[in-house]
Amino acid sequence: MTDNGCVFCAIVNGRADASVVHEDDSVIAFMDLQPVTPGHVLVIPKAHAVGLEDLQEGVGVAVWKVAHQLGRALRRSGLRCEGVNLFLADGEAAFQEVFHVHLHVFPRFAGDPFRMEADWRVQERAQLDRAAAAVRGGLAALDAG
Amino acid sequence: MTDNGCVFCAIVNGRADASVVHEDDSVIAFMDLQPVTPGHVLVIPKAHAVGLEDLQEGVGVAVWKVAHQLGRALRRSGLRCEGVNLFLADGEAAFQEVFHVHLHVFPRFAGDPFRMEADWRVQERAQLDRAAAAVRGGLAALDAG
Repeated sequence: MTDNGCVFCAIVNGRADASVVHEDDSVIAFMDLQPVTPGHVLVIPKAHAVGLEDLQEGVGVAVWKVAHQLGRALRRSGLRCEGVNLFLADGEAAFQEVFHVHLHVFPRFAGDPFRMEADWRVQERAQLDRAAAAVRGGLAALDAG
Repeated sequence: MTDNGCVFCAIVNGRADASVVHEDDSVIAFMDLQPVTPGHVLVIPKAHAVGLEDLQEGVGVAVWKVAHQLGRALRRSGLRCEGVNLFLADGEAAFQEVFHVHLHVFPRFAGDPFRMEADWRVQERAQLDRAAAAVRGGLAALDAG
């Protein structure tokens, strides 16, 4: 096994430090070095995949299951946790920084420092319907491919 | 079937408008009314669940699988998509606004208006190890419960 310069593969292969909270045959979960809040966990597949495109469906399901459990576990951890966010960044434009797919799970509480900004205007139905048609086209292309 | 005042149950039951992109036995996906970017989809279980706590594991897996496919479909949709984010808010403190669990899937591109802010300082290993111990405690409590 080589890490190919991937820090998450190095963690999987025991060649980099990590504060591990879960490990099974296909998934490992460990603390984010730069936590949004205390308890911020990353769930990754052991097999290297960059993002959603090359992540095998069954492995993705395994990652999700662990994240789901961890979200529930955070509320039982004694860490401050009034809510939980799951977040995945697929691609540099989506703020991905380590190119080994990872699902963030982090506790939230009133007054914590995490903020999101966007243009939250309600869109007209005609615009939404056009976008929906495009997305259905994407699904059809995926099925055909 | 009653909606119990839940707008997503109303969509599931055909009593509220939605621009639907996918529907199967347990999951429906439709355009977010306030898209971060064009193509922003919400994936929800048809059976009402508030959040991660009351979401059945198998139903959660079904939601994830559809979101994974949609993330790949967005890149084939013709909509501007250089990256994809998945996001789930569990609880008001985590920015949940509709209390029927939903997984956001939205396209990203350079210069889009979405931003996240937090205190991204690297934490010391001892702190991370303490948090990891707490999270493992939460997992043990979940197993015991």
